Amino acid sequence: VNAAEELRISDPTVRRLSGYYRILGELRAGGEETVSSYDLAHRSGATPAQVRKDLSLFGHFGKRGTGYAVAQLETEIRAILGLNRHWRVGVVGAGNLAHALIAYREFAREGFEIVAVFDNDPAKVGQDWNGLRVRSIDELVDAVREERIDIGIITAPAEAATDVAQRLIRAGVRGILNFAPGKLFVPKHVSLRNVNLAIELESLSYALK
Amino acid sequence: VNAAEELRISDPTVRRLSGYYRILGELRAGGEETVSSYDLAHRSGATPAQVRKDLSLFGHFGKRGTGYAVAQLETEIRAILGLNRHWRVGVVGAGNLAHALIAYREFAREGFEIVAVFDNDPAKVGQDWNGLRVRSIDELVDAVREERIDIGIITAPAEAATDVAQRLIRAGVRGILNFAPGKLFVPKHVSLRNVNLAIELESLSYALK
Repeated sequence: VNAAEELRISDPTVRRLSGYYRILGELRAGGEETVSSYDLAHRSGATPAQVRKDLSLFGHFGKRGTGYAVAQLETEIRAILGLNRHWRVGVVGAGNLAHALIAYREFAREGFEIVAVFDNDPAKVGQDWNGLRVRSIDELVDAVREERIDIGIITAPAEAATDVAQRLIRAGVRGILNFAPGKLFVPKHVSLRNVNLAIELESLSYALK
Repeated sequence: VNAAEELRISDPTVRRLSGYYRILGELRAGGEETVSSYDLAHRSGATPAQVRKDLSLFGHFGKRGTGYAVAQLETEIRAILGLNRHWRVGVVGAGNLAHALIAYREFAREGFEIVAVFDNDPAKVGQDWNGLRVRSIDELVDAVREERIDIGIITAPAEAATDVAQRLIRAGVRGILNFAPGKLFVPKHVSLRNVNLAIELESLSYALK
């Protein structure tokens, strides 16, 4: 694992590892102790060669005839993905998407805890959302520090996203998940992932054409 | 374009094409007439070699010194992605995520129109959502046919997703975008994309570790 942590694993590989990690969890829950690269490939949609290549990145070679040890591989991928710790998350933009994210049980299960919600609308500030008080955007910098927030999720409209990202960065957030359309620029020490839901529909429309 | 339509373009390539398509739209809006593979690479996060390889898939080779014609390339990628037509979309599960998707302006701009929302909760059925009446899940099969719905989006909970997918498929939907956790099985003639929001956070936690 030490050697693997020094590797730069590409984003598509990280996504495939996330997929294997879920499959391994299901296999373990179903009582399976080993899994072949063929089975992991079939379940994940990758090729067996791709699975073997991905897992060899951190020194894993399935044994002929027995395959990979499910629980061990799951534990190692969890560590690689940084899921064996707790992440504190703040959401900026108290709209429907924020509501949906707060209700999304997968986040909590993987160690991502939403600890604060912010908005600039005075009508929303002070509302109680399942025990979270919606805070003013003006409280953001202080709250990120007090609540030790690692990751900010931007669900604000596109026109506010740049300002929100700057506040998050100033406050010391290290990672940003951005749902707002348009490009954000962040300094090198901050990690940014953009989620564009239209791209998901476009990959469907390509297939349907 | 005819030759390209016969190619099977991989899903990661389709996603990069979606990215180039957005960048080309911004460049055109900014009055740019040409773009180099270096510039497209810089803006999209791909390498120049990757950009050239992706675009060569459909016979495009940027000219030395001038690059690619922005408007032409945008038009061709729009056609490749199936965005030069209108897609009728139905959302199953009238919760916060559905609300957020209906409000998501990018969808309409790219030709995806949400024409129906369904739920199995009698308290929600009949509600008016921005002019859309929430329909009972029991109306789904008839409504998909009457409304000529091409794509179904599943925002229902995991335990309902399999049943919802079966109803959508029975009704004749050709594409499904699934937000519910867990694996769905669909017949070959139906295209499925799974969106797992936890995977986005996992790729951030990998980077932050």
